[in-house]
Amino acid sequence: MNTLALRWSLDNKPHLSVLDQQLLPQVEKWIGIHDCNEMIAAIKALKVRGAPLIGVSAALSLAQSGLHGSSKEKLLQEATALMAARPTAINLMNCVNRLQKVILANVKPELLLKETLTEALAIAQEDVELCDRMAHYGAALIESGDSILTHCNSGALATAGVGTALGVIRRAHELGKKIHVYVDETRPLLQGARLTAWELDKFQIHYTLITDNMAAHVMSLGKINKIFVGCDRIAVNGDFANKIGTYGVAVCAHYHQIPFYVVGPQTTVDSKCLSGAEIPIEQRHAHEVRGASGSFGNVIWSQENTPVYNPSFDVTPAKLVTAWILDTGVLTYKNISEGALK
Amino acid sequence: MNTLALRWSLDNKPHLSVLDQQLLPQVEKWIGIHDCNEMIAAIKALKVRGAPLIGVSAALSLAQSGLHGSSKEKLLQEATALMAARPTAINLMNCVNRLQKVILANVKPELLLKETLTEALAIAQEDVELCDRMAHYGAALIESGDSILTHCNSGALATAGVGTALGVIRRAHELGKKIHVYVDETRPLLQGARLTAWELDKFQIHYTLITDNMAAHVMSLGKINKIFVGCDRIAVNGDFANKIGTYGVAVCAHYHQIPFYVVGPQTTVDSKCLSGAEIPIEQRHAHEVRGASGSFGNVIWSQENTPVYNPSFDVTPAKLVTAWILDTGVLTYKNISEGALK
Repeated sequence: MNTLALRWSLDNKPHLSVLDQQLLPQVEKWIGIHDCNEMIAAIKALKVRGAPLIGVSAALSLAQSGLHGSSKEKLLQEATALMAARPTAINLMNCVNRLQKVILANVKPELLLKETLTEALAIAQEDVELCDRMAHYGAALIESGDSILTHCNSGALATAGVGTALGVIRRAHELGKKIHVYVDETRPLLQGARLTAWELDKFQIHYTLITDNMAAHVMSLGKINKIFVGCDRIAVNGDFANKIGTYGVAVCAHYHQIPFYVVGPQTTVDSKCLSGAEIPIEQRHAHEVRGASGSFGNVIWSQENTPVYNPSFDVTPAKLVTAWILDTGVLTYKNISEGALK
Repeated sequence: MNTLALRWSLDNKPHLSVLDQQLLPQVEKWIGIHDCNEMIAAIKALKVRGAPLIGVSAALSLAQSGLHGSSKEKLLQEATALMAARPTAINLMNCVNRLQKVILANVKPELLLKETLTEALAIAQEDVELCDRMAHYGAALIESGDSILTHCNSGALATAGVGTALGVIRRAHELGKKIHVYVDETRPLLQGARLTAWELDKFQIHYTLITDNMAAHVMSLGKINKIFVGCDRIAVNGDFANKIGTYGVAVCAHYHQIPFYVVGPQTTVDSKCLSGAEIPIEQRHAHEVRGASGSFGNVIWSQENTPVYNPSFDVTPAKLVTAWILDTGVLTYKNISEGALK
């Protein structure tokens, strides 16, 4: 199995490697992942990122551990540790939960590793198909001539498939629709500037990179007529968490009356989460805001003791969303208020 | 004359130097300015920045040129060149226009240089007083316990005095009001992260640095109850231009019903400019958005050919402004719609 950012093979022994997304776009470096601790470290360092890709990667990492002969107890411990690597990402919980069930259900070691691998590969294949279905529903909402804003990276680098929000945009392009994409750079980790721009360049889709604080201005000039963003978790009332900055884009879209679409698989819906207020917001290190990191290393432009607030995500309330594009179809606010996500 | 970022002395010969604001906060380096071309280069490179400081600096640079024996014709050429260094900054036009009048009015060379210097120093002294009056009016709007958001840098680094928006905040602190300041980092040139944070640290005012795209989220958490920003130009209908990102802050403030104040001297009002639509928006180099610069040099995190849009300013419409804090007093939307700025 090869995706844009994940490679898995099983000849004599399992080979799992990930594209180090912290070094893109200047350096395309693949990192071998030999055990779950290395995967956890890669997830925490955002070398592996994007809610669906994290889930698929964690599942394959567990399957690899099984193939290496880890005991049931060790696998369950690793499953717990993997889930803690990114607490906001519900896909991660869902994928690891599926493997936990398989692990618990199988007593014989040889069956355990076989079933674990089968389940992990099924999760990856399902993600490819989920992306295709979202891309299908979402691309239908895009017309030739559209100028689209997106935030962060929700493309093939973030999933095992074509992507969520950026997958929708790419599919529209593949269908021959003439579009232009404005890309928020997405501070502090610059996923827009580094990853989305790289993907759009790779797939030859016209785009313009802007700093996050230019989005409102560009909207006011009438240069944006649709917005697509991904999501890390959707509550049953339609509120959703996504990369920090998404909420500000939604508020500005609302003010300018620009359609604002959120794209994510049904697996991103957390049926236990009644509203956005219940979604935990991960806080990250201050140094990310004090400077920037990339293939050039780390630079700091603030004073070293500068007090910082660094939430990784924010929550956008359902009332700011025009429609939710899931793999199961497109939902409106009315659908959701009638319980479509329950 | 010594300000936080500008030094002028006249012993045997004139000495003009500026603090290189591109290297702050890590390096405090003063640059000698020997002629108008060097001042123009410093303004274009944002080593000298902040609308009022640019005006004062340009005026002193012309006075210095007079003291060096420049002819009337050369001075008038230099005046024109200085005005073109930052087309959006109306203060620059106003200050240089005042010197142009003095230059045109004086025929005798010895009077020319004396009057030019007198006028330039008067402009600097007036700026100090303008800042004090804005700080007086603005600080009265701040209460102990307020949590304030600001964007870019509008402090003592941006003026010859205490500053405009940040001067208001500093004065409130000096008056013993207990406040907390959230600082937008202000991409692409990071004036918030580099300059405002440095000033707040220097004056021991509590603050938290955030990326621009966190502002809306912080507002949604109820952590901001007032917003103060500076301005580069105010149209007679109250629309104003300020650092890119100001407009997005204003839209989010409006959505969260947070008072949004713009602070600037009366000299920032362009009586020939009827609305924000007439304010020219300077476009800057793509490399600023593709990476960042500072005392560490230049880093690029995008691909080298990444297409970029890089407006230096945006325009905030009057309807999003709670009040305009000028050196002449505080104006409401009603005052302005009745022609207070005409």
